Amino acid sequence: MQPYQTLREEAYAANMQLPALGLVIFTFGNVSAADRSKGIFAIKPSGVPYEELSPEKMVIVDFDGKTVDGQLRPSSDTLTHAVLYKHWEGISGIVHTHSTFATAWAQSQRDIPLYGTTHADHNTVDIPCAAPMSDEMIAGDYEYQTGFQIMDALTQRGLTYHDIEMILVGNHAPFTWGKTAAKAVYNSAVLESIAQMAQLTESINHNAPRLKDALIRKHFERKHGPNSYYGQ
Amino acid sequence: MQPYQTLREEAYAANMQLPALGLVIFTFGNVSAADRSKGIFAIKPSGVPYEELSPEKMVIVDFDGKTVDGQLRPSSDTLTHAVLYKHWEGISGIVHTHSTFATAWAQSQRDIPLYGTTHADHNTVDIPCAAPMSDEMIAGDYEYQTGFQIMDALTQRGLTYHDIEMILVGNHAPFTWGKTAAKAVYNSAVLESIAQMAQLTESINHNAPRLKDALIRKHFERKHGPNSYYGQ
Amino acid sequence: MQPYQTLREEAYAANMQLPALGLVIFTFGNVSAADRSKGIFAIKPSGVPYEELSPEKMVIVDFDGKTVDGQLRPSSDTLTHAVLYKHWEGISGIVHTHSTFATAWAQSQRDIPLYGTTHADHNTVDIPCAAPMSDEMIAGDYEYQTGFQIMDALTQRGLTYHDIEMILVGNHAPFTWGKTAAKAVYNSAVLESIAQMAQLTESINHNAPRLKDALIRKHFERKHGPNSYYGQ
Amino acid sequence: MQPYQTLREEAYAANMQLPALGLVIFTFGNVSAADRSKGIFAIKPSGVPYEELSPEKMVIVDFDGKTVDGQLRPSSDTLTHAVLYKHWEGISGIVHTHSTFATAWAQSQRDIPLYGTTHADHNTVDIPCAAPMSDEMIAGDYEYQTGFQIMDALTQRGLTYHDIEMILVGNHAPFTWGKTAAKAVYNSAVLESIAQMAQLTESINHNAPRLKDALIRKHFERKHGPNSYYGQ
Repeated sequence: MQPYQTLREEAYAANMQLPALGLVIFTFGNVSAADRSKGIFAIKPSGVPYEELSPEKMVIVDFDGKTVDGQLRPSSDTLTHAVLYKHWEGISGIVHTHSTFATAWAQSQRDIPLYGTTHADHNTVDIPCAAPMSDEMIAGDYEYQTGFQIMDALTQRGLTYHDIEMILVGNHAPFTWGKTAAKAVYNSAVLESIAQMAQLTESINHNAPRLKDALIRKHFERKHGPNSYYGQ
Repeated sequence: MQPYQTLREEAYAANMQLPALGLVIFTFGNVSAADRSKGIFAIKPSGVPYEELSPEKMVIVDFDGKTVDGQLRPSSDTLTHAVLYKHWEGISGIVHTHSTFATAWAQSQRDIPLYGTTHADHNTVDIPCAAPMSDEMIAGDYEYQTGFQIMDALTQRGLTYHDIEMILVGNHAPFTWGKTAAKAVYNSAVLESIAQMAQLTESINHNAPRLKDALIRKHFERKHGPNSYYGQ
Repeated sequence: MQPYQTLREEAYAANMQLPALGLVIFTFGNVSAADRSKGIFAIKPSGVPYEELSPEKMVIVDFDGKTVDGQLRPSSDTLTHAVLYKHWEGISGIVHTHSTFATAWAQSQRDIPLYGTTHADHNTVDIPCAAPMSDEMIAGDYEYQTGFQIMDALTQRGLTYHDIEMILVGNHAPFTWGKTAAKAVYNSAVLESIAQMAQLTESINHNAPRLKDALIRKHFERKHGPNSYYGQ
Repeated sequence: MQPYQTLREEAYAANMQLPALGLVIFTFGNVSAADRSKGIFAIKPSGVPYEELSPEKMVIVDFDGKTVDGQLRPSSDTLTHAVLYKHWEGISGIVHTHSTFATAWAQSQRDIPLYGTTHADHNTVDIPCAAPMSDEMIAGDYEYQTGFQIMDALTQRGLTYHDIEMILVGNHAPFTWGKTAAKAVYNSAVLESIAQMAQLTESINHNAPRLKDALIRKHFERKHGPNSYYGQ
């Protein structure tokens, strides 16, 4: 039995959900799962198709992005994951995909407006679209800087990673996170669904109104916080 | 054998149709099936994924929303179902989903215009979109009020639940109903299809004309009423 | 062995292709297969879901729409099929669906412009959209008149059923035909694909040009006529 | 064992990927695989549905388009493949499809703008749309001229087949190529994804900005060239 077997299996299972949920083709995405007690995470190896993945192929990396265990090169997005794990102590899962509708919004460089309760069940604010990186940051350590690009976009909007678990990186694609890798994958599918509904909503009504505040609060509080009454 | 086994199995089978028909992901929907002679209905438990459902997990609730049998908490939308069963004596099935195209129309806060015979085969009127609830109603018993929001929207248009078996709740998502849970599920899939066709119709022709009255009557009467000649 | 067993099996197999190709849900379509030597055709029974179909349930009808053999009521669109078989001696298969994109064009009451070679491989002209029927015709024998509505639309455009094997009925949905039921089903899937591409083409370029005449002729003649060189 | 068995199997496997990836229906596409040492390629036979294909049915053709081995007629697009193999010494795979979104862009006669990193991961330039052929070229050897139409479009933009491995033929549909048939198929699926995202991006934001140069270079160089660090 390999070291970190449980974490590898968690990351493997979460990665395999991406094609199953229609969120990726080929190698267009990656999931990591962290073990915060050890300060490490398991992540998809770079450029390996999902049908060739196995728990053994997951790469174990620390929060500085250094490979700790594994024979393959980790995802090229590894440093972005590492930066977020290092700064956000409450998360243990991160997902990056190029899912169709969320990526189209990212390319459009627009926040996704909060148009309905599907969105409000998960977030009380528009989904932020981080502004494209400056040329200096791109020329530096690109994937490392992507982590700061994401954190800056939240800060600029007065949000923390607790307030929202999904973001669009302008001209690029979405990242999502959560307490577990499975929750981060769930958030990726929710984001894709919200993104598609918002595109259609504007197609049907160019002046579609945002959801009113009372409904935003109500739907979010049904599922989250001390008075939630959704789930078991 | 559990009490209410037949009703539980009916509700279970109808719930499982939602992911099979592509109308829900994760836990984004619920179906109930009523036994009017006993004044109860079986409904999906809250927040349980479809792949983990079983007939035994269905919750039995009365028409005031009180749990009669079952170990899990019922759907958070249970009171909406209860209100509709209590007031509409002719229905024994209700479905709520966040299906993509119907939800986009709900978010657009527009009724779906009657553009063609696919729509007219099932309804002689536009699909109503209920206006968003007042802040007072939201602050009260939200799911209970959603039932009245639905009934009010029909009343305002001079319609009864016999005239139409589907509605959009503004900024939220669709509800459908029928004489059985299976019929309500059928109506959900029909609504999603109508919603997609209407969005495309307007994309192709901004001035697309509504269906003329003679055709509305003809298509509806083919399938419904004393002179219907569709089906066996 | 039932009478007309071969014809029943042909009609059954062709009907089952409709859900397999994603062209129908529930009972939203029907295929017939004709035996011209006997002056009859086999057609789907009315309102029976595809998963419950069998060759034995197909209904045998003559070209006046009279049931010759079979225990179920034939499709409510049977008279439309009968009229077309009676007037168009070269066809032995007809399909009616409410496939999403073709139906959206029908609801838009626009002919589908010939934008590219996918279209030109199959037709040298725009796909006609027949004008909605007059109230007098609707009040008469509706399905019978639909056959004439289709034939009139071709005549008005100077076309015969040899020139094109697909049409949109305004506000309603598509009909296709061919030398066999299988060819008519093929045409239904081709029409749906052309309809989707044309909707997207206009979305991408409002002033998209129609295909030039030289390319229309070239692509059609590759597949059809004395100098064709496509296929085996 | 047939001659050219390995090449036949490579071409067969690549052709079968087209329906698996949702890029074709019926016979709307073809893949060829070349053995440059022998100056030949294996290509799909014309008009044969994918479910009836086998390695044995692949046709062996030389770079002048002459059949070298095989009992069936090769794809009607064979001469286009032959011309490209003859002029582009670095490729051993070509794909032609009528995939929905890429074909819609071709029909729109627009290059696909480089809107995001999904595009930049594979190409540093807009996807060219070759201008429709002159009537003289169409009247000549059409498929042969299509090869030159493709090469001319690259030349006019100052590009070589190394710079980009995909193109739209105006009013027609996409062609892609690569070092292997499998890579060319991969490129076809990538193009379809890019085409869909670009259509949606413009729908969401009519003034969506193109990706900035620094990001174009960064993303392409992650995957390509001497400093690439993507994959194993």
